[in-house]
Amino acid sequence: MVDGAIQMTEDAAGRTRMSVVMDTIRQRIAGRSLTPGAKLPSVRGLALTMKVSTSTVVEAYERLVAEGAILSRPGSGFYVANQAAPFALAEVGPKLDRAVDPFWISRQSLEAGDGDLKPGCGWLPPSWLPEDSVRRALRTLSRADGSTLADYGSPLGLPPLRQLIARRMAERGIEASPDQIMLTESGTQAIDLLCRFLLEPGDTVLVDDPCYFNFHALLRAHRAKIVSVPYTPAGPDIQAFATTVAEHRPRLYITNSAIHNPTGATLSPVVAHRVLKLADQFDLTIIEDDIFAEFEHTPAPRLAAFDGLDRVIYIGSFSKTLSASARCGFVAAKPQWIDGLTDLKIATSFGGGRMTAELVLNVLSDGSYRKHLETIRHRLSLAMSTVCAKLKNLGVTPWLEPQAGMLLWCQLPDGIDAADVARAALEQKIVMAPGNAFSLSQSATNFMRFNISQTLDPRIFDVLGNILKDRRH
Amino acid sequence: MVDGAIQMTEDAAGRTRMSVVMDTIRQRIAGRSLTPGAKLPSVRGLALTMKVSTSTVVEAYERLVAEGAILSRPGSGFYVANQAAPFALAEVGPKLDRAVDPFWISRQSLEAGDGDLKPGCGWLPPSWLPEDSVRRALRTLSRADGSTLADYGSPLGLPPLRQLIARRMAERGIEASPDQIMLTESGTQAIDLLCRFLLEPGDTVLVDDPCYFNFHALLRAHRAKIVSVPYTPAGPDIQAFATTVAEHRPRLYITNSAIHNPTGATLSPVVAHRVLKLADQFDLTIIEDDIFAEFEHTPAPRLAAFDGLDRVIYIGSFSKTLSASARCGFVAAKPQWIDGLTDLKIATSFGGGRMTAELVLNVLSDGSYRKHLETIRHRLSLAMSTVCAKLKNLGVTPWLEPQAGMLLWCQLPDGIDAADVARAALEQKIVMAPGNAFSLSQSATNFMRFNISQTLDPRIFDVLGNILKDRRH
Repeated sequence: MVDGAIQMTEDAAGRTRMSVVMDTIRQRIAGRSLTPGAKLPSVRGLALTMKVSTSTVVEAYERLVAEGAILSRPGSGFYVANQAAPFALAEVGPKLDRAVDPFWISRQSLEAGDGDLKPGCGWLPPSWLPEDSVRRALRTLSRADGSTLADYGSPLGLPPLRQLIARRMAERGIEASPDQIMLTESGTQAIDLLCRFLLEPGDTVLVDDPCYFNFHALLRAHRAKIVSVPYTPAGPDIQAFATTVAEHRPRLYITNSAIHNPTGATLSPVVAHRVLKLADQFDLTIIEDDIFAEFEHTPAPRLAAFDGLDRVIYIGSFSKTLSASARCGFVAAKPQWIDGLTDLKIATSFGGGRMTAELVLNVLSDGSYRKHLETIRHRLSLAMSTVCAKLKNLGVTPWLEPQAGMLLWCQLPDGIDAADVARAALEQKIVMAPGNAFSLSQSATNFMRFNISQTLDPRIFDVLGNILKDRRH
Repeated sequence: MVDGAIQMTEDAAGRTRMSVVMDTIRQRIAGRSLTPGAKLPSVRGLALTMKVSTSTVVEAYERLVAEGAILSRPGSGFYVANQAAPFALAEVGPKLDRAVDPFWISRQSLEAGDGDLKPGCGWLPPSWLPEDSVRRALRTLSRADGSTLADYGSPLGLPPLRQLIARRMAERGIEASPDQIMLTESGTQAIDLLCRFLLEPGDTVLVDDPCYFNFHALLRAHRAKIVSVPYTPAGPDIQAFATTVAEHRPRLYITNSAIHNPTGATLSPVVAHRVLKLADQFDLTIIEDDIFAEFEHTPAPRLAAFDGLDRVIYIGSFSKTLSASARCGFVAAKPQWIDGLTDLKIATSFGGGRMTAELVLNVLSDGSYRKHLETIRHRLSLAMSTVCAKLKNLGVTPWLEPQAGMLLWCQLPDGIDAADVARAALEQKIVMAPGNAFSLSQSATNFMRFNISQTLDPRIFDVLGNILKDRRH
């Protein structure tokens, strides 16, 4: 290492040593290991620790001064600026390729224009949802009493909707009284409340690898340490699960049992049993996020059914089968936890969305809803075969053919980088979901998640075919 | 202190020394200064620190063992049980009289039966809200396009609603482009997102004393340290403000400027100027929660207008004047903060409530909405005189007569405890809001907040009159 020369060689992520130093300091400030007013490490000290030249550190510090992140006090050293930067979720954790950042897919999917195609998004096209029932429910709601239209909801949420949810859960073998069920604005908000309830900053949480990308984002927002175990077609790799819980003692495990996101896999009863046994042994609480439940043809085993809502907490939502525009989810947990969760819900969002809950109740009570679900399942089955066949033609191989649902986890031809494909597709107004966004270990470079209900337009296969062809040369 | 005798004398809150010891340990566990598996202080050590007898500590530890909170390892000592209790918001901070716990008023108000009277709640009776407009808006919504009814909202929220909010803010002298405005599910959710964005656990936040009781609950949920300054009829006591920011260096100040909750006071331009000057000097960010804005007759000075959304963040909502059943609020902040806030919103609640935003837009665009606001303001003026006069007859004295709004902060006759009155009123199905729920310093024992729109039923004055009469003997 020669002092006086700023190293311009790049690391694996293509960053110069100077940007590595800048990122390190920025992360310490963001994570508050360096608080406002705190003195930065000396130039020489940091150069030694990071194995870079002192001039690299000087240059990095000077640029951070220019950014306003730190201050220079001549003769004394460098200090964190008093107004610390706000918590930047996108900066927490390892710096990722923007295209596989958990926020990239969310943003691209949510911001996509009406003409854009979204094989990477996680929901059905509006035309698949029960539009007529929703319209009827809105008209019914327009005749509701004044209190329904104007007042805050009760803390747990609309009682008849909670009763109906309890009955529907019973059909999946999960017993819960309506008083164990709390309505939320969404499945995501339910998990967020549970993280507030069960986690302290720095606690460890276990997820599947791959898992729903927003789990990563949500857990970062809670300053949790995230660990993962590989997911197999029958559930988490139980050997890795055992080792990981023993080593890291996570407080929580967040998973989907019935239709796993992104793989579409189904938890086997044997793996369910073993997961619960290990959870008992290591005192692990499990959040079972079951928002795709209604796509199933035959109910798969649920951790919550095996366990009886003791150490398993069950989450559901109506965004996938009814409407994502009307926000309504729920959490079912053991009775002694509901009060604490309700306090947190009131403190952080006050009343729940009463009008939306009434709307959901109206649609669910409508005789046509079960028929609607059957239609969706049938359409998904057909689309699954079609999309599988077409993808295979392009050399894109499903990891497994899911029993139900809209998600298809696929391997691209050898050596092709999914993030690269996603970037190229976005230029042609197609939003895709590259594998590493779902992978804590960043081991899914070669995978892509498809939503078969949004992958029926022939243009997707044309564009994808061309992108793959270009990259095979 | 005599060893061997368990002291049964009570402290100010009526707790025995043993329960004080138990509460201390419970709070350390809840706050994770004692983590799962950690060894508890020795019996003798804790007895010395807490100035109690060793037998008091032994008894407290044994009861905590019985509760499952801690474990005894004979010959070794006492240890925190492995499965730490979930985060109990109601247990954080000093143990309060349940009747002045911030959750008490929320729960009682939100859970009140239809026949109950709620002079203590913070919203208008449904019959005061624009029921007909909401019904019309629901019918309009029932004819909207499929995407509006089924799809997730865009990350910032419905563009035309954000444009309309920007125009309405401009009328109050606050300039913000629609891109600086993010829709949320409520004003509370907006403040919650800002706390996630701007606070780390342990950061200090400044509030008014008294202030809206849910600020206390929300800040506890963020593990913030809360400090307060006395509120005067012209805004925070500026001398106390200067001393407190200098001493505690809070990162945030949360306040209402126009119609202060619970006092109904209005910030004066001079105090606004001084607050902002101190904020500049001590690098303080201010959240101006302006959810009562539309009740004003003439716009009062806003911190956000003086400051131009530089260090002030502005919050609004439609729960108070349109509907609390349809949840919709917003936050306006400087452009460079919006992206980070949006990431947090996506991570913790994914899409916003598009259908509700459309509903709010429909009602606000309805020509009748401004007329509706005028009617509400007029009714509130009339109710204010009536309720003031009737309360004065009972010896209940308004602290000031607010220029607008529904809130009236009153002093009860000398020596009468508002929490005691609230408990007695609840037995007769009347929910009241005792002063100390709003006061960090617990110095409002003798105060009560009335919502004049919900204090028109003669039974309230009969019941209150009798309760006060009983206590004056």
